[in-house]
Amino acid sequence: MLVALAGGVGAARLLAGLVRVVDPAEVTAVVNTADDMVLHGLHISPDLDTVTYTLAGLDNKETGWGLAGETWAVMEWLEALGGEHWFRLGDRDLATHLYRTQRLSEGATLTEVTAELAARLGVDVRLLPMSDDPVRTRLTLAEPSPVGPDVSFQHYFVRLRHSVPVASLHFEGADRAQPAPGVLEAIETADLVICCPSNPLVSIGPLLAVPGVRQALQARRSDVVAVSPIVAGHALKGPADRLLRELGHDSSVAGVARLYADWVGTLVIDEADAALADDVARAGVRCVVAPTVMGTPERAATLSKVVLDAGG
Amino acid sequence: MLVALAGGVGAARLLAGLVRVVDPAEVTAVVNTADDMVLHGLHISPDLDTVTYTLAGLDNKETGWGLAGETWAVMEWLEALGGEHWFRLGDRDLATHLYRTQRLSEGATLTEVTAELAARLGVDVRLLPMSDDPVRTRLTLAEPSPVGPDVSFQHYFVRLRHSVPVASLHFEGADRAQPAPGVLEAIETADLVICCPSNPLVSIGPLLAVPGVRQALQARRSDVVAVSPIVAGHALKGPADRLLRELGHDSSVAGVARLYADWVGTLVIDEADAALADDVARAGVRCVVAPTVMGTPERAATLSKVVLDAGG
Repeated sequence: MLVALAGGVGAARLLAGLVRVVDPAEVTAVVNTADDMVLHGLHISPDLDTVTYTLAGLDNKETGWGLAGETWAVMEWLEALGGEHWFRLGDRDLATHLYRTQRLSEGATLTEVTAELAARLGVDVRLLPMSDDPVRTRLTLAEPSPVGPDVSFQHYFVRLRHSVPVASLHFEGADRAQPAPGVLEAIETADLVICCPSNPLVSIGPLLAVPGVRQALQARRSDVVAVSPIVAGHALKGPADRLLRELGHDSSVAGVARLYADWVGTLVIDEADAALADDVARAGVRCVVAPTVMGTPERAATLSKVVLDAGG
Repeated sequence: MLVALAGGVGAARLLAGLVRVVDPAEVTAVVNTADDMVLHGLHISPDLDTVTYTLAGLDNKETGWGLAGETWAVMEWLEALGGEHWFRLGDRDLATHLYRTQRLSEGATLTEVTAELAARLGVDVRLLPMSDDPVRTRLTLAEPSPVGPDVSFQHYFVRLRHSVPVASLHFEGADRAQPAPGVLEAIETADLVICCPSNPLVSIGPLLAVPGVRQALQARRSDVVAVSPIVAGHALKGPADRLLRELGHDSSVAGVARLYADWVGTLVIDEADAALADDVARAGVRCVVAPTVMGTPERAATLSKVVLDAGG
């Protein structure tokens, strides 16, 4: 049995490769929900949806988000009505949010709704939200913003295009949250825990902030293999590099190794960073060098094999 | 200045005729909101939307509900996901509900949101919800139902296709509701109050149940003109005839007159019911006989003139 700690796109790509080399039913993905938000009254879970859509083969490979063959009738009318349209919601994607919101309003948990959607879309990987309780990433901007000093993750990520400096971040509600049912058990009993190449601070960070998760991972440290989301100093997608620097870390595989050292036994870094392998080792983390850029599902599958081998 | 008390389709048709013969800016429509519901997390106001869409010329004349040229991408996917799809929500219609729900979540009142939507869609009639507070029609069914004895209006109307006997109804929240800002003032200062041919029990009934509204109407009784929604014993649309009978009233213009007698001075009845004019008069209500079936906007305009004349 395998556990994957997952954010959005990077995690979804690795998981899509992983299910080419192992039985999907043997994989449990624990997915970040701190990017979730309520907009237009709808409960939106961007990372869960990205992972679900990608594993269902429905992801839009051109945009990197949303569904393939999506239509935009609702959003066009919402814009005509003068509504908020900065967060683009396609028609089919909206159906997911309507479904989730209705089920939650009926008393279903996010874990249950996630499983229902996965089953409907033919996803055999077991998808768990990190928590059924609300945890929300809040970022304090380094410079004054029209909406105040504190913004939600989606406000920062989508509306401000993650182009503004961040002074600090915290995970609202994390101290009161419980891991979703099955999360700790999955980590405790897994043969291998894979930390996907997701943003260390705003995708993996929230998982670690849910009480009990970091401790469970620390207890399995030698069986935890992470893939660096930083390649040659840069994030392949998103603001991980900026955020690492702005919040006092190194935007490098060594910086990732130091950040993860207490709970990650092995870090897989890209060949472009081979010269930094010793720095990773100096952080106390075993280092494996391999091609990590997942341009195609085949490359993601190859990377998955490297990760499985790294875990012994 | 004119005030119209409005439910959905019948009221929308009369209002569309009325604005052909008077300046729309001189008309205030007070619209039933007891059919409103939250579904998929979205605040849906069926009567407000029907009136707004119709006055904007966007109504679907074939179905009698929703928007013309509507598409169904969201609903089709929601059905594929196994979601609740008994209440058909078109893509453009959904944009209205997203807009309303978001604005309400930001603290706007239903009155404000209604005005914003009307302005965006070019509707010059002043549209007021009967109340900014939640009032919900609940129906107790005469026979056991799988969802229990009590159902919401939309459950009865759409899901059960209003084909089950009703034992009683009440308007949840009405006792604690306040009329929306401007409602009482509009009634108090109107030259004429028009009660549209809407369902007396579940469209006009809720308006009367909002504290202060019935009293305000009673004080203007001689200036209140109603158009009977019952023609030759039948409702032109919907369950008004059934409901009147099931709840102990007559499904006839005389029954309507008796129901409205304390606050309606004049009832306009269809030529088909000319023989019952004396029964209307015996209820203490002045009777005007005219063609009331609004097959075309022109006929609705003609009926509007009759109503205006009836009001002196």
